Amino acid sequence: MEQPTYVIGIDFGTESGRVVLFDLADGREIASAVSVYANGVIEDWLPETGVKLEPDWALQDPQDYLTVLQQAVPKVIRESGVDPARIVGLGLDFTSSTIMPTLADSTPLCFLPEWRANPHAWVKLWKHHAAQPEANKMTQLAYERGYTFLDRYGGKVSSEWFFPKLWQILDEAPEVYQAADRIIEAGDWLIWQLIGQEKRSASMAGYKAMWSKREGYPPDNYFKILDPRLEHVVDQKMSRELYPLCARLGGLTEQAAAWTGLKAGTIVTTVHIDAHMSATAAAITDKPGRMVIIMGTSNCHHILGSEERVIPGICGYVEDGVVSGFLGYEAGQTSMGDQFAWFVKNCVPEGYEQEARTRRLNTHKLLEEKAARLKPGESGLIALDWWNGNRCVLVDMDLSGLLLGATLATKPEEIYRALLESTAFGTRVIIENFEAHETPVNDIVAAGGLPGRNKLLMQIFADVTGRSINVTATEQGGALSAAMHAAVAVGPAMGGYESIAEATKFMTRLSDQVYHPIPENQRVYDQLYAEYLTLHDYLGRGANDVMKRLKKIKTEVRDSSPNFRS
Amino acid sequence: MEQPTYVIGIDFGTESGRVVLFDLADGREIASAVSVYANGVIEDWLPETGVKLEPDWALQDPQDYLTVLQQAVPKVIRESGVDPARIVGLGLDFTSSTIMPTLADSTPLCFLPEWRANPHAWVKLWKHHAAQPEANKMTQLAYERGYTFLDRYGGKVSSEWFFPKLWQILDEAPEVYQAADRIIEAGDWLIWQLIGQEKRSASMAGYKAMWSKREGYPPDNYFKILDPRLEHVVDQKMSRELYPLCARLGGLTEQAAAWTGLKAGTIVTTVHIDAHMSATAAAITDKPGRMVIIMGTSNCHHILGSEERVIPGICGYVEDGVVSGFLGYEAGQTSMGDQFAWFVKNCVPEGYEQEARTRRLNTHKLLEEKAARLKPGESGLIALDWWNGNRCVLVDMDLSGLLLGATLATKPEEIYRALLESTAFGTRVIIENFEAHETPVNDIVAAGGLPGRNKLLMQIFADVTGRSINVTATEQGGALSAAMHAAVAVGPAMGGYESIAEATKFMTRLSDQVYHPIPENQRVYDQLYAEYLTLHDYLGRGANDVMKRLKKIKTEVRDSSPNFRS
Repeated sequence: MEQPTYVIGIDFGTESGRVVLFDLADGREIASAVSVYANGVIEDWLPETGVKLEPDWALQDPQDYLTVLQQAVPKVIRESGVDPARIVGLGLDFTSSTIMPTLADSTPLCFLPEWRANPHAWVKLWKHHAAQPEANKMTQLAYERGYTFLDRYGGKVSSEWFFPKLWQILDEAPEVYQAADRIIEAGDWLIWQLIGQEKRSASMAGYKAMWSKREGYPPDNYFKILDPRLEHVVDQKMSRELYPLCARLGGLTEQAAAWTGLKAGTIVTTVHIDAHMSATAAAITDKPGRMVIIMGTSNCHHILGSEERVIPGICGYVEDGVVSGFLGYEAGQTSMGDQFAWFVKNCVPEGYEQEARTRRLNTHKLLEEKAARLKPGESGLIALDWWNGNRCVLVDMDLSGLLLGATLATKPEEIYRALLESTAFGTRVIIENFEAHETPVNDIVAAGGLPGRNKLLMQIFADVTGRSINVTATEQGGALSAAMHAAVAVGPAMGGYESIAEATKFMTRLSDQVYHPIPENQRVYDQLYAEYLTLHDYLGRGANDVMKRLKKIKTEVRDSSPNFRS
Repeated sequence: MEQPTYVIGIDFGTESGRVVLFDLADGREIASAVSVYANGVIEDWLPETGVKLEPDWALQDPQDYLTVLQQAVPKVIRESGVDPARIVGLGLDFTSSTIMPTLADSTPLCFLPEWRANPHAWVKLWKHHAAQPEANKMTQLAYERGYTFLDRYGGKVSSEWFFPKLWQILDEAPEVYQAADRIIEAGDWLIWQLIGQEKRSASMAGYKAMWSKREGYPPDNYFKILDPRLEHVVDQKMSRELYPLCARLGGLTEQAAAWTGLKAGTIVTTVHIDAHMSATAAAITDKPGRMVIIMGTSNCHHILGSEERVIPGICGYVEDGVVSGFLGYEAGQTSMGDQFAWFVKNCVPEGYEQEARTRRLNTHKLLEEKAARLKPGESGLIALDWWNGNRCVLVDMDLSGLLLGATLATKPEEIYRALLESTAFGTRVIIENFEAHETPVNDIVAAGGLPGRNKLLMQIFADVTGRSINVTATEQGGALSAAMHAAVAVGPAMGGYESIAEATKFMTRLSDQVYHPIPENQRVYDQLYAEYLTLHDYLGRGANDVMKRLKKIKTEVRDSSPNFRS
């Protein structure tokens, strides 16, 4: 019998990096380790210098990514007892668009003492929302000048994308922009650290930098209209050479081998967007009309199509973006786990924490248990899931969260349940939007960290959407997808696969647990969804722009006070 | 020099009774004691029998009121060292409309074993809101049949009033209604316990039972239209003999003297509504256009007028209702302290509680401190203060609370501040409503428990309303007012006073601290108030009745499940 071979997948999320070692033959998890980012999401103050950040900023420290390579990978190898020579491939996914300025040799500007106190030198995380003015101008000018590339992205530039963030650097810190030889996705930067070459992901560029396989980036003239200094941004700070998924980019450098404990030369494949990777693991190619929802900090919805369709309000579609040979349609919700985590951090009374400790439950679990005892509609609450803006279908990061129906008898678990329900209503809006544009959604596969952890959430999604929900068998969907891409890069000659569809057959499976809609819950949720939609349209489509005005007032108040500025 | 004489005022609030001994000459507080009601507000389960209550119920246990007499009064006498013979009068205020069914000898039905497990046998507290259907029918039929008595009350019957609660007993528990020889305000019942005679307060009947000095109760025919069994309700269960404020009702019985440690025969005066009493203590007679706001669990606004005016949306006006010789206009907000207490109980994370303990602050104080560091508008939040419905000017208990503008960066103190602000916006609506009906509001006196405890709240009220706010010197405004009424009942011959205006001169004062509006805060709050008003009208005046529909769904869901019924 042949000796088994292995691949490693690393899932770089918002708060941590997860390293998982898989058996190449059957996708079995052999060992895993998590490295939580020491500086996490930087929202208030810069580390060390204590420079105060403005509202809507979200930064990260690239050293936290390196620590995943330096600590979690060796740990997994050690704990598995596997000979590093048997680990033939390495794949990774990363949040996106998460961008950073670097020198020509890949050194992050924020590593340099002269730039360390400048927030613009740091990594701008996907959920950095301070580039909304830039995003708005990009949308407006694209329309005014008759550019059509936004048709592929639901018609609006999101402040979460690559260029608004890049432009914000130029707007607010031209000296940083000037000093940056490269501006790059953090995931692409990490590939550079692994193989010693800058080889950027076509999929990331496709979803987040308006690049397409047929047309490339928007023309220089568009950038020139935005700001004359941006005219040659692609050639000056980026690259037009982009690599498809599953490409064999190169081998691990000696330096990276020393960090990780892997062999130099181990095959490394293209980085993919974290929320997309699980789509592969969720056997998206199996069934037509299958929507895969990757549920984590935020929510990502994928459907594969073979025809090109313009669907307003979605995040976009990219040819070969999720799986080669298909158009990958993507939609999303900006807050999901994030919103529940916000609640747990800010709104859970001490007595609940004590109960959780006594019963050795985590707080989420305790809330889930209490919330599961409630019936749909029983709390009288309804929420709009816009704690982190709305990505689809309104594409408006200036929207904010709403809770309606509170009384003196309202309990924490009722609010928690209303937040869960609000994300399901948001997903229903997305599904109905797809269906209104000839893209039926027949069933749902839930992947990512949340589905395995929160059964109540899955049942609510089934009841609200009226669709049955399968859950992927692994909670490590991101890492598994990354490893599958590596397995294809490795290729059949070395025990890997010739396509993602092949890898899916051998390496993935769905859990036995399927959530079916419960008719009596559906009846109540249909009523609540009607209320949700009315509020959604009233507050999200211009009838009452109170959320935008409040945000404007907030910004003005902060700007008018010297205390809020660094 | 003459020996000093004293009066006792007892302030029966929602959660406790406060007993204060005052010097009759100058209103100085000599001693005080609080007795917290052991059964508090009963909202979930009946004590002992564990019978489950439906939503919107709020009951109390009359034994808790007696305990105030039996424990807190003796404590005050003991601690003051005052000879009980020198205590010449006793006054009390009580929440209203807080009603109970009793036997002819005043025994509460809920004291009897055969009725103890029936929720309708207990005291229905002012904030019992389950009689909304009855209130709606009363309003509707008054209009249909051309009755005009509602003109005095802003045009709508509130579910908090006497008759909707009484009618709910008949509707849902006719056997309890049948067994009740008397149905009476708990405050009037307590007078009965003190002097051995049923002597009801004209002021309570005026504000809460649609009685007026000139017209009496609504005619029997109106009650007959509501329900034939109600035709003679006034003569069968109530009394047409009502006593004005400051009346010398009688002397303490031997039984009550034994409970309290006071002398038998001590003069007892008419009970008054708790939220009204402080109006007297706040020197309301001093200045025209002075609004007194009694801030406690809920909010009560008073202005005196000499002319009769029909003002929509207010709680009502009663001749001699607050001060003899004036029309007392009343408005109110159903939740104030209650709403803040809800937040503290349900929404404060453990870390804050720990910080409060470490710093020996109570949680409210810690939140106030953190919230005070924020600028108006800085949080981006806005709330509608309807956690307990809306008393004025919408008069709709089916409305509920709203929070809008939440983000992942929203902190507990920001929500807390938004709740404080929402109550100030609600008061501004009331002020603007008075002013739109020829009743100017020039300045504000804040009385009750909250003003002394929460400076931030006072500043927000000044900034939002654009009016300067004086605070009463005592936090025992309710007890002081009760004592002042007793002082008038006692009369000049025994060291008391001949009128409330006289008593006010000697016994009351305002604090030196005055809160003035800060112009830069006003500018921001004017913008936020405009947003508040838009949401207030959208959700409160029929454009989107989502709150009512959610409440209906909630009721249906609970009714459809056997678990929710006793």
